[in-house]
Amino acid sequence: MTDFLRQHLEELIPLSEEEFTYIRPHFSVLKKRKHQFLIQEKQPVNHIYLVEQGCVKAYHTDPEGKEYILQFAMEHWWVSDFQAFFKRTEATIEVDCIEDATIWALSYDDMEKVCAALPKFEHFFRKKSNMGYVALQARILSLLNKNAQERYDQFATLYPQLLQRIPKQLIAAYLGVSRETLSRFNTR
Amino acid sequence: MTDFLRQHLEELIPLSEEEFTYIRPHFSVLKKRKHQFLIQEKQPVNHIYLVEQGCVKAYHTDPEGKEYILQFAMEHWWVSDFQAFFKRTEATIEVDCIEDATIWALSYDDMEKVCAALPKFEHFFRKKSNMGYVALQARILSLLNKNAQERYDQFATLYPQLLQRIPKQLIAAYLGVSRETLSRFNTR
Repeated sequence: MTDFLRQHLEELIPLSEEEFTYIRPHFSVLKKRKHQFLIQEKQPVNHIYLVEQGCVKAYHTDPEGKEYILQFAMEHWWVSDFQAFFKRTEATIEVDCIEDATIWALSYDDMEKVCAALPKFEHFFRKKSNMGYVALQARILSLLNKNAQERYDQFATLYPQLLQRIPKQLIAAYLGVSRETLSRFNTR
Repeated sequence: MTDFLRQHLEELIPLSEEEFTYIRPHFSVLKKRKHQFLIQEKQPVNHIYLVEQGCVKAYHTDPEGKEYILQFAMEHWWVSDFQAFFKRTEATIEVDCIEDATIWALSYDDMEKVCAALPKFEHFFRKKSNMGYVALQARILSLLNKNAQERYDQFATLYPQLLQRIPKQLIAAYLGVSRETLSRFNTR
């Protein structure tokens, strides 16, 4: 399993044996079953998570019980309640598993410690954060200027694998359309 | 003017004289008039911009000429076509000045060079990017689960200064509502 983390990090930063040996013990590996939580509302959020296998969703539930999906994460994607994690506040969103999952966890303190000790680790997270920012800007633009069918088509083009794995009502909750609207689309 | 940049950076990273003396020449200062462009569509995007004074908008224009505002930036905010800047592609959005502006520019190559030479500079941009990511997630959630009036109220609470400075039709283009809808709101 160590191979996964090393391969993931080395997509951006080549690592010596010594560097990886230093990094590795700061991560722990979790095995989660479908429907289990990684983050629950109003709890402190001490970890950022990297999915090795499986699929999770990060979502907000309004007082009427309606779910709004902020993010999916599958293999090689990072997930957390980033607001709570970075600002050291309580969770306002929840993260749970859509499938059984193998997940790497890194605590806030360890993230900061390893970033300070190893500049290339900080470089890795700067680049990851930049790419995440860009993806969110694209999503905002599509929420502003695309209709529901266009947003669905864009999602299908960007994430064909998610489309196969994720129940339609979750995709609807991600796109901001009703399940009924989605069912009328030309879906793939 | 050097004081502004130093003060801005030192909000996150304390700098020695020597460090700031190293950083400073990598930035250039631009004076722009209202309506002048920082970034135009289909051009390469080689700089990231920090606003010292004034206000700019980053926006996409659809084929019918309708504007969708991705971001405003006023004093102490960073702006660019981040997708084009980080991915080294051509601009798909434009950035122009809503007011006369004083703006600090940092090129991609200089950003990477200084980040590599001075880990705390990389730390600065990792933290900035994380905060930006969190702000965009909050905006996505509000686009998914808030109606137009609620989004306006949230904007007014978060950015009272922008509300005073920016024409209503631009706020409408940021919130994803029509100018007519906005004019019916309980605006402040």
